[in-house]
Amino acid sequence: MSTDPLVIFTPSGKRGRFPAGTPVLTAARKLGVDLDSVCGGRGICSKCQITPSYGEFSKHGVTVAPDALSEWNAVEERYDSKRGLKAGRRLGCQATIQSDVVIDVPAESQVHRQVVRKAASARVIEMDPATRLYYVEVDEPDMHEPTGDFERLERALKAQWDIPGIAADLSTLARLQPVLRKGGWKVTVALHKSHVPGPHRLIDIWPGFHEGGLFGLAIDLGSTTIAAHLTDLVTGEVKASSGIMNPQIRFGEDLMSRVSYVMMNPGGDVEMTRAVRDALNALITELAAEAGVAERLIVEAVFVCNPVMHHLLLGIDPLELGQAPFALATSDSLSFPARDLDLTALNSSAQIYVLPCIAGHVGADAAAVALSEEPGKREDLSLIVDVGTNAEIFLGNSTRVLACSSPTGPAFEGAQISSGQRAAPGAIEAIRIDPVTHEPRFRVIGCALWSDEDGFDAATAATGITGICGSGIIEAVAEMRLAGLLDPSGLIGSAAQTGTARSIPEGRTHAYVVHDGTADGGPLITVTQGDIRAIQLAKSALYAGARLLMDEMGVDQVDRVVLAGAFGAHISPLHAMVLGMIPDVPLDHVTSAGNAAGTGARIALCNVASRVEIEATVRQITKVETAIEPKFQEHFVNANAIPHATDPFPNLSAIATLPKVSFNDGGGDSGGRRRRRRT
Amino acid sequence: MSTDPLVIFTPSGKRGRFPAGTPVLTAARKLGVDLDSVCGGRGICSKCQITPSYGEFSKHGVTVAPDALSEWNAVEERYDSKRGLKAGRRLGCQATIQSDVVIDVPAESQVHRQVVRKAASARVIEMDPATRLYYVEVDEPDMHEPTGDFERLERALKAQWDIPGIAADLSTLARLQPVLRKGGWKVTVALHKSHVPGPHRLIDIWPGFHEGGLFGLAIDLGSTTIAAHLTDLVTGEVKASSGIMNPQIRFGEDLMSRVSYVMMNPGGDVEMTRAVRDALNALITELAAEAGVAERLIVEAVFVCNPVMHHLLLGIDPLELGQAPFALATSDSLSFPARDLDLTALNSSAQIYVLPCIAGHVGADAAAVALSEEPGKREDLSLIVDVGTNAEIFLGNSTRVLACSSPTGPAFEGAQISSGQRAAPGAIEAIRIDPVTHEPRFRVIGCALWSDEDGFDAATAATGITGICGSGIIEAVAEMRLAGLLDPSGLIGSAAQTGTARSIPEGRTHAYVVHDGTADGGPLITVTQGDIRAIQLAKSALYAGARLLMDEMGVDQVDRVVLAGAFGAHISPLHAMVLGMIPDVPLDHVTSAGNAAGTGARIALCNVASRVEIEATVRQITKVETAIEPKFQEHFVNANAIPHATDPFPNLSAIATLPKVSFNDGGGDSGGRRRRRRT
Repeated sequence: MSTDPLVIFTPSGKRGRFPAGTPVLTAARKLGVDLDSVCGGRGICSKCQITPSYGEFSKHGVTVAPDALSEWNAVEERYDSKRGLKAGRRLGCQATIQSDVVIDVPAESQVHRQVVRKAASARVIEMDPATRLYYVEVDEPDMHEPTGDFERLERALKAQWDIPGIAADLSTLARLQPVLRKGGWKVTVALHKSHVPGPHRLIDIWPGFHEGGLFGLAIDLGSTTIAAHLTDLVTGEVKASSGIMNPQIRFGEDLMSRVSYVMMNPGGDVEMTRAVRDALNALITELAAEAGVAERLIVEAVFVCNPVMHHLLLGIDPLELGQAPFALATSDSLSFPARDLDLTALNSSAQIYVLPCIAGHVGADAAAVALSEEPGKREDLSLIVDVGTNAEIFLGNSTRVLACSSPTGPAFEGAQISSGQRAAPGAIEAIRIDPVTHEPRFRVIGCALWSDEDGFDAATAATGITGICGSGIIEAVAEMRLAGLLDPSGLIGSAAQTGTARSIPEGRTHAYVVHDGTADGGPLITVTQGDIRAIQLAKSALYAGARLLMDEMGVDQVDRVVLAGAFGAHISPLHAMVLGMIPDVPLDHVTSAGNAAGTGARIALCNVASRVEIEATVRQITKVETAIEPKFQEHFVNANAIPHATDPFPNLSAIATLPKVSFNDGGGDSGGRRRRRRT
Repeated sequence: MSTDPLVIFTPSGKRGRFPAGTPVLTAARKLGVDLDSVCGGRGICSKCQITPSYGEFSKHGVTVAPDALSEWNAVEERYDSKRGLKAGRRLGCQATIQSDVVIDVPAESQVHRQVVRKAASARVIEMDPATRLYYVEVDEPDMHEPTGDFERLERALKAQWDIPGIAADLSTLARLQPVLRKGGWKVTVALHKSHVPGPHRLIDIWPGFHEGGLFGLAIDLGSTTIAAHLTDLVTGEVKASSGIMNPQIRFGEDLMSRVSYVMMNPGGDVEMTRAVRDALNALITELAAEAGVAERLIVEAVFVCNPVMHHLLLGIDPLELGQAPFALATSDSLSFPARDLDLTALNSSAQIYVLPCIAGHVGADAAAVALSEEPGKREDLSLIVDVGTNAEIFLGNSTRVLACSSPTGPAFEGAQISSGQRAAPGAIEAIRIDPVTHEPRFRVIGCALWSDEDGFDAATAATGITGICGSGIIEAVAEMRLAGLLDPSGLIGSAAQTGTARSIPEGRTHAYVVHDGTADGGPLITVTQGDIRAIQLAKSALYAGARLLMDEMGVDQVDRVVLAGAFGAHISPLHAMVLGMIPDVPLDHVTSAGNAAGTGARIALCNVASRVEIEATVRQITKVETAIEPKFQEHFVNANAIPHATDPFPNLSAIATLPKVSFNDGGGDSGGRRRRRRT
């Protein structure tokens, strides 16, 4: 009877004995149990809620008496009457241990709670944000010991939270005195602890206990779109997401045209930097309004972006990225104040983190994909492809990870395609061609029906059928190959060769009519021989990049393929493989990671340790520069055929039969001419 | 013969043996001899010049042969023909040791050279600036190893200068790439190494070897004037000095009226902050132009200022400094980027250092006085008085240092004096009164002649004789006391009592006519009874503060008195003692430290280690708050008499006889009335 009561915490299973009367929070801290507290055990913040369990626990070998914890005290009564404690809950800082007890820490009382993402394959994010709230009671000024208010705040944080020292911006210092007095020397501070050595940084201060929470932004700054997720830094919950067009598009659709703009227009980089920063401020304001979050409560932003956007965001002329040797001004991660980017919509002391770049063509967005997908943490060999204007490609397993960028061009995004358009309502996003009749059916964005289903015309009347988007063109080309309308060399057969009037002449080549809307004043949507060539160039570059990494790794096949990028989510694995975009693997080994770059940004935002991790990972990644590898050109040429001139595709063959057709009758096609010259 | 040659460096006396062929610079580095080099021994910077000595050195026990160093090499020949090497000089990185040799390192080749200040009593400043230049050769980018240019610069600095890591602003990063290419991957960087832990900060970068030097500003930001010294960060030389009026004067002459302005006018602090920052930018531009120094080469500024100016500079509302308990927002030193103060006239990455404040009334200017005068490093007991609107007072020796501030008011600066004015041409700055005739003679600012010397009228015709400045009023009051025109209680005698028509009635009291310019349309300059009372209040406060510190120290006398402040330089020790401004000490133990606050700022600018020193010193200083010490009032009342009601002034008595007069005839003076009511 003289032994102290035993306390067992679940789900951690941590256990220990403590003298009767010990608060549960104290016991949890001593055992290293993850139990949150912002107010430091003063019964204010209610973050330390726990659920005691009663009765027999044979598993733990204890019996918990009904009076194992102290009676409710006045603080708990008051809290319950004001805000309501859930049934069975206690405040861990108030309830004291009286006898053996089993205590469950619910997920929302854990600091390092895990945020489960929607995508089934995705890893969970453990909450460990760089910026956190601390409630603290500061000594009043004393003329006999005339220290500054800031220094007394620092002393209180040391005494009450064991935080060794803090630093602050002048703008935060300027807010300090009135807040301390308004709060009666009780305040809540937001402190940012970077993953690089240095003191905690005072981001903001509120009188008394601050209830409003803290928020951060994960921003995927793409060449075409800027996507941002406003995230609760305590729960990890995404409060609002929004994407806007990158306003730099007016300076050039793709990256290289923006670099050209800078070369042609001195000061053009400054213009583009201003444009993107202005757009970011507008986006932040919009997100904050949508989520009902005060802008001042947004204290962090994490950026992922390709190297050119990286430089233009930071205010660095991207000139060098447009020419060999593609030297980055800086490749390491960056941590700096948001005001350096003129992001006035954030808290005035908000902190920015930009993920490291991997190489001059493999940016922080690729690093974010690596952080999200973690190829280096798996035993099997993963090929990860982030398809965009450039494709970033990773190949690796736990022994080694390789990365390269391949210049696919914008065809996969529907650009440089005769009927191509961005993914927007009215765009054809999926297509099937009957192998016998050669008639197509398709779906357009904004309508769940196929074009041969009842009600399709009515449902699409508003948007019309306006063009083909990136995933649509990939499917169209693959379906044409599957239906025998296209031969392995990429030639479209004539009406005579294919037996369908949908093959129409176009100059000396042919085009396939997907949809003729001309009767209603709409467009004639076709896939032309030029479109096929553009897709062939893009997919050859992608495949050649992957093949180059496989050479470097010394393998002829991979275990799995991950398609990343918003676009990756819409590519059908079968069609990608028919096209020969990706190496042959079993179809169920091709998965989509969704917007892996955006996910990587969220991970870096919610978990500061992941910043250390990705920085180390990037240093270890072997970079392969496609532009200077002689074998790239050979791989590129071989990959021109659909699916491939030389590499076998056994897994594809097992599930699909590609018609053995050849339309090379010596007529019209430039590709054909090229081949002829060689023979 | 098999022993290595002996190398002896002077003036350090460091010696060691090195294999024949060792460059002198290498030997110096190995022995820890202070020999400068910016280019790292590449024969570019010429900072490592040395002078070999030849012949017999019995003191060192060596004979130096004429060929003790290698012959001039091509690098030295080229340098000499292009720029000229002084006779006898060699480049330490090129000349190699062949046999025993004595090598002198001239002062200008030392990094830590000592800057001798003009004032004889003053300590020398050892150069050890926070910001220094480094010449470095950076690897070109390599596509096989795609690191950023910044990371390759970092690597080069590690390899060539053993600098472990650097950080940079975005604005500096933006300049990096073109400079590296322009310099052919050879650049000079300015790196700032703070005295607080953290990486070196890249301030700026120049192609090739940068010849332009680096500069810093020591700024004494006073309530009335802003004085700045543009200083060469290599030699310590002051290139230009300038002072301007503090534009905040339009919001209030003294500090408390500025605090009142803020109380009455919301946003008034923002207005005043903007005004002082604008003035600083203008001052910096003016100084740079005067010295012919590019503004971009000004990479640091050190500020000293009183607490109210400190807060207004930083953008902090000084409200709390206007009321007990006089809480500073922050008291520790501050290091931050100049752009946070909108000091756009400096280099865009320039760094600011603000000395710590000692207490709510004892600011960073007082800390600078402590740094300059170092009372804690002497065995004898020093009383240091910085006379201004408030007097900051230190008392201490190597065992302990005390500090307080005493509210002297502006009388010592000529304000609240009937004929008072600022120290400007035309102001009476010195005065003597004949003890027999009671006739005055005086000097005015802008003219070296006394008023009774030939040519005085002509010499002062342009300025006129316009009033009395601070040092003038102190001398006038003391001279009146010495001449028997003023009794110990501070009453001015009537014409009848004193026998001079220069004593004229003024209401129920009297005034002494110093100069009557009314005949020429000029002013009638008098010292009135009200002026005497104002000076008595001021000097009582000053003396009472000193006395309070002496109580705290447990002493009745001090060993020396140092008068600091620009004003201190103009106060005559004798007159100060007659007035009883300072405790009685032998007259030759009263010295002037000149603008000690400004000197402290220069020390902190030139020697980064001194920042650590003053921060530690300030923490150790015992602060005494006059406002809450009950004995202050008693000391204040006793100090009202001239020189003092109770304290003996034996040193003063030995050199001057104060007439035993009393003009208290029951008439007119409020002081007299007060005394009557007490009896």
